[in-house]
Amino acid sequence: MSLFDVTVEASCGAARALSFETAHGTVRTPMFMPVGTHATVKGITPDQLHALNSQIVLANTYHLYMRPGVDVVEEAGGIQRFMNYDGPMLTDSGGFQLFSLDHMMKADADGVTFHARDYDGSAHRWTPESNMDIQQRIGADICMQLDQCIGYPCEKEDVAASTALSWEWAKRCCDAHTRIDQALFAIVQGGMHLDLRLESVRRLLEIDAESRSSGGRGFQGFGIGGYSVGEPHDVMFETLGQVTRALPDDRPRYLMGVGNPTTLVRAVREGVDMFDCVLPTRTGRMGTAFSSQGRMNMRNAKYKRDFTPLDHACDCPVCRQYTRAYLRHLVMQKEMLGGILLSVHNLHFLISLMGRAREAILGGTYEEFYRAWMASPAANDY
Amino acid sequence: MSLFDVTVEASCGAARALSFETAHGTVRTPMFMPVGTHATVKGITPDQLHALNSQIVLANTYHLYMRPGVDVVEEAGGIQRFMNYDGPMLTDSGGFQLFSLDHMMKADADGVTFHARDYDGSAHRWTPESNMDIQQRIGADICMQLDQCIGYPCEKEDVAASTALSWEWAKRCCDAHTRIDQALFAIVQGGMHLDLRLESVRRLLEIDAESRSSGGRGFQGFGIGGYSVGEPHDVMFETLGQVTRALPDDRPRYLMGVGNPTTLVRAVREGVDMFDCVLPTRTGRMGTAFSSQGRMNMRNAKYKRDFTPLDHACDCPVCRQYTRAYLRHLVMQKEMLGGILLSVHNLHFLISLMGRAREAILGGTYEEFYRAWMASPAANDY
Repeated sequence: MSLFDVTVEASCGAARALSFETAHGTVRTPMFMPVGTHATVKGITPDQLHALNSQIVLANTYHLYMRPGVDVVEEAGGIQRFMNYDGPMLTDSGGFQLFSLDHMMKADADGVTFHARDYDGSAHRWTPESNMDIQQRIGADICMQLDQCIGYPCEKEDVAASTALSWEWAKRCCDAHTRIDQALFAIVQGGMHLDLRLESVRRLLEIDAESRSSGGRGFQGFGIGGYSVGEPHDVMFETLGQVTRALPDDRPRYLMGVGNPTTLVRAVREGVDMFDCVLPTRTGRMGTAFSSQGRMNMRNAKYKRDFTPLDHACDCPVCRQYTRAYLRHLVMQKEMLGGILLSVHNLHFLISLMGRAREAILGGTYEEFYRAWMASPAANDY
Repeated sequence: MSLFDVTVEASCGAARALSFETAHGTVRTPMFMPVGTHATVKGITPDQLHALNSQIVLANTYHLYMRPGVDVVEEAGGIQRFMNYDGPMLTDSGGFQLFSLDHMMKADADGVTFHARDYDGSAHRWTPESNMDIQQRIGADICMQLDQCIGYPCEKEDVAASTALSWEWAKRCCDAHTRIDQALFAIVQGGMHLDLRLESVRRLLEIDAESRSSGGRGFQGFGIGGYSVGEPHDVMFETLGQVTRALPDDRPRYLMGVGNPTTLVRAVREGVDMFDCVLPTRTGRMGTAFSSQGRMNMRNAKYKRDFTPLDHACDCPVCRQYTRAYLRHLVMQKEMLGGILLSVHNLHFLISLMGRAREAILGGTYEEFYRAWMASPAANDY
């Protein structure tokens, strides 16, 4: 089997169980991917990531480009060698971060000029071609096209313009991407407008087909960007299923930046395969835990003398070894270990949730899995 | 062999290699003990502590008494169960913390009244008897007497008064301490005055002898407090050796709060068996590493492209897995993992240094070990 060849192992309604190869191992979907923005999943060692059955870890091109610099990552032997993580990795292009710089950023048809205000304010210019060069040097197994991500709410004409720019850049990224041990994913944009979303998909598929017919490799998967950017919660689901069903069956679909447990369960049912989010580690550092009973704020005084496990339904190392009373103590004292242990638990929660979703798809019972989840107290967590 | 019975395995000059039993395992000296003030060694899991061959972990009576409260620790089944650490533990009495509260604290002959200004400002009163009760309920394997610790510089009459108060409290702690699975260590005070130090030792030995002759258990070891409280660096060594040699050969000597590598190597030569300090984790969180070449500030730009191990002479998991360039990146980005990894390395550095010191004593070559250390670049670290 070649790198990035996809096997559709089962489907159940629109939900799918895929597997595909990378140079650093096979990945199986549906899956949740921990985020390691600065070449570290905050507070978690690579050994702990492996113990969590983490499959793909994300890093961020913009942040690595700024610090420690692409040359340092490249000289280290690539992102995996640099951070001592030997599993599959993905780099986001940094488009989202650039277009969050607001007035410090100016996009034109050819590329984007920006001032890195969250670092030293220095001026930089990126084009789709230079972004591909950077991501190839960083060397993750999967890279994402440079796209333009626009917020919500937004005038439709502005969404249309950024969507058009994104697919033009998708073509240029496709042409510029040469590293054959690295997959390239295109990104569907279009905001909350179904017509723009479907137009985006159609254009990306044209680019993919043109590339392949002329001996190129096209896209090995599709990101679905521009959701979870501030819209009311159910607005995404008005269009998400139609977007995923317009995408090819034989390539992974990655809903970018989504990490609420219930949203994952619902999006898998709409045909999404991959997710990432900082939510499990960020909420963990803030003292909050996912659980089978819904989200738990570990500051709550009711846990002070509660010597039971964090989540009775969970078999992660934290739930097997520590009590609610101890975790509350760590959180109240702002001890690092509190954030670490809750991050481990929260990552396990989403990774194992997707593992159970996969089992349900393989067993042909995803609808039952979905209904049981939505009827449970955990469904309140989104 | 009974609990806390000491075997003197070897001595080499004044340096000694002891072993003694606790209910949670045998400990072997010389040793460095990681500090877990709030029932956690900052950023380090119990599994990581075991992997580091950590022998005894310290917790702090004052801080646990304030948060989460003695009742919570007791209901959890004691400090080990509470924090999920199954090895030997020691609690400091909290005397040092109380007497650091300055004007928020008032000591009299019977005890000390204090306002916990670093928590909620609430008022409390401790006596030697109530402190023993608290430490017995916390349940570490070794507890320390309540003492009065005075700063430097200080009028000799004030040092004399606090030293006298400390030995009077030692007797009351000895009488009040009943938990037979828990050792009680007395604490030698006397500041930088040899006569006061030797008087302190003499009085403590009298109390110990009186206790034993009347069927009591006396003291199972001796803390040496009131050093490293601001005096110039060599002042401690003017008296330390004479203090240790005045103490019984068959009981451990614990130099409290000392953690510089070179100071450990020197103090072992003066007959000290046990050390503790927050230095390895605190400096680790601040981006600094111990090394065979002396202390390293990982912010230094010279490490930016240095893909070699942190310390070539070290075999800890951090030196085996990560590069200086990566560690620098984590420290520069203020990433939690930087502090965690440097804490692991620094703890390993002191724990393994004491392991090597022990081997040298057992082999009868401590003087050579000492001279080699003092001639090495590492000796600059004190």
